Amino acid sequence: MKKQEKKPVKELEDLGRKLVVDIEKGRNPTIEFSLRSLSNVVFDTKTKTLGLGSKQQQRTFFNVGHAKKFLQTLEVAKVSKTLLNVGKHASLRDVFYMAKRTLPNSNTNIVDDQSESDKALEDLELITDCSREQLHINANKMGSVAGNVIIEDAGDTINWAKLGSGGWSIPSNVEDIEFKSVKAKYVIYMEKQAVWERLHEDKFWDKQNCLIVTSQGQTTRGIRRLLQRLSQEHDLPIYVLADFDPWGFYIYSVLKFGSINLAHMSETMTLQNARFLGITADDAVNYDLKKHFIKFKDVDLTRIKQLSDYDWFKKNKEWQRQFKMMKDFGAKLEIQALSSKGITFISDKYLPDKIKKGEFLD
Amino acid sequence: MKKQEKKPVKELEDLGRKLVVDIEKGRNPTIEFSLRSLSNVVFDTKTKTLGLGSKQQQRTFFNVGHAKKFLQTLEVAKVSKTLLNVGKHASLRDVFYMAKRTLPNSNTNIVDDQSESDKALEDLELITDCSREQLHINANKMGSVAGNVIIEDAGDTINWAKLGSGGWSIPSNVEDIEFKSVKAKYVIYMEKQAVWERLHEDKFWDKQNCLIVTSQGQTTRGIRRLLQRLSQEHDLPIYVLADFDPWGFYIYSVLKFGSINLAHMSETMTLQNARFLGITADDAVNYDLKKHFIKFKDVDLTRIKQLSDYDWFKKNKEWQRQFKMMKDFGAKLEIQALSSKGITFISDKYLPDKIKKGEFLD
Repeated sequence: MKKQEKKPVKELEDLGRKLVVDIEKGRNPTIEFSLRSLSNVVFDTKTKTLGLGSKQQQRTFFNVGHAKKFLQTLEVAKVSKTLLNVGKHASLRDVFYMAKRTLPNSNTNIVDDQSESDKALEDLELITDCSREQLHINANKMGSVAGNVIIEDAGDTINWAKLGSGGWSIPSNVEDIEFKSVKAKYVIYMEKQAVWERLHEDKFWDKQNCLIVTSQGQTTRGIRRLLQRLSQEHDLPIYVLADFDPWGFYIYSVLKFGSINLAHMSETMTLQNARFLGITADDAVNYDLKKHFIKFKDVDLTRIKQLSDYDWFKKNKEWQRQFKMMKDFGAKLEIQALSSKGITFISDKYLPDKIKKGEFLD
Repeated sequence: MKKQEKKPVKELEDLGRKLVVDIEKGRNPTIEFSLRSLSNVVFDTKTKTLGLGSKQQQRTFFNVGHAKKFLQTLEVAKVSKTLLNVGKHASLRDVFYMAKRTLPNSNTNIVDDQSESDKALEDLELITDCSREQLHINANKMGSVAGNVIIEDAGDTINWAKLGSGGWSIPSNVEDIEFKSVKAKYVIYMEKQAVWERLHEDKFWDKQNCLIVTSQGQTTRGIRRLLQRLSQEHDLPIYVLADFDPWGFYIYSVLKFGSINLAHMSETMTLQNARFLGITADDAVNYDLKKHFIKFKDVDLTRIKQLSDYDWFKKNKEWQRQFKMMKDFGAKLEIQALSSKGITFISDKYLPDKIKKGEFLD
């Protein structure tokens, strides 16, 4: 067994043993764990992340309202234990199909819909204090990375600086990666693959001694964990490069402060030292990009109002200034608008200048 | 200049010279190329691909209806020439912003919307007989690959068999890749990254001597070209692994027979020796997967009717049988339903058996 598999295996076995004791002593088999509902999601002002509060919930077997969920929880625990035993990983969809069986002498399926196995798995994360990834259940695979880093993974030694125009394809699960050498001062994380290809072709990571990471759209758990490990284990600041629009701000918000859905995972999923590099309202002015504005739709205005009410943005003057300017512009702006200044403007001028001057939002 | 850049540069220069001659001789500057409209899209029964017919169109400068498009075409030609000159690549979105300027002493922008520069670029592909990628304009980056292949790309030597759990991240543009060593009997292309991770963890490519390629959703141009180059330059059959649903069939259809949108690129974008490996209606029966059926929605039925009317499927008994069975089931089935048979069932049993028995649809 790999050393990182010891904890999840022990936690799953402890869960099983605890229930056996309940049964042997004639008690109602009971699992207790933090309440995962909006009423128990709190913003921790110290760590500045969304997490769960102190409320607990109980799941018991002899309870008409609990029995099916109880069974589902144990079923995904069994699936996870099986995966750990054979050293394999599965996707959420696989877990659904592995758990989907009809109970003998009945018409009842253990799960009918993936949302049921997904929820049971989120509960299991809380019960075992292990992430889905540690339980050998993978998130989506997405994204690429390049830079002066050497890792060991699945028996291979991989140099992220020597992978041509493609880069390394980030797996859904990065728990088992070992960092052998990390030569970089910071990480730039960007939503758009096309921007990543721009920086990669310009050898930006080589010239600026940094790492470049991209997903496509919302940040997957694999990428978050990769960024978090680089940040925590190698003390690298994470700079977020996104469009100047409510969605770009939201991506940053989730990365840094967490989200309601992942409140139970805030310790392993949030990036407390992430900083927003751009595009900002000031960039639109300073780099003469207003002519590339894209007009707001109603939904954009709604989103900006929601964002500006978030606990972590509410008292932040710099962010409130951004929201106000965006509302006054009534428009958003894409990173790629920088290409109007020349194809390598972003690599040669925009990013180096902003980083040198320390123009970040926190 | 790289040898693969000679043709696009020459074609762009020829276009410019031709127009200069028109001007010098007092003629109306004119560009002629194949008509790109539905009326000129034909199914070539010999090559079995969708392509353009013989109708031509003219674009002239002194013509109120043509002048703006004429200018747009030349503008993207200029952007492409600039990119080739400096050895850089750009995304479609970049090209839009690079072309977007206000004409002096007017309120008219060369392009107002990306669809305009995209269309101009498709025309330029026809005019120069060079793909967007050859013109240094990139498609979306997506997908991963693994297997016993060594390539050279952007100065690096990359072994696709030694890239840990992530694999090589496929770039948007694979024109410049050099294959140094290709040890494989076939390629499996799958839509779902999660299935790719399953096969990769099981070292399927190593055990079966093949390559595994994935995108996520519809196949990008970069991936199509990669598959096509592997198929043409190394004579590898391409096996398509997709869900048993209209969308999965459609992915196969586009890969093999082309699409209306890309009719002008059918030579470089279609895979004449692709074969559909699964999931088929017969698999649902043979592997006892009917209990994992997902009921049809109205849109599924509509799509199946459309698919069964496609020229290339209409007279194909095997495909018509699939369509009929799917309609009779009134249901679709996901690849991951195979996980209900055990996590490595797909790698250990399903794929090896199907390939051994040659159970393909063509």
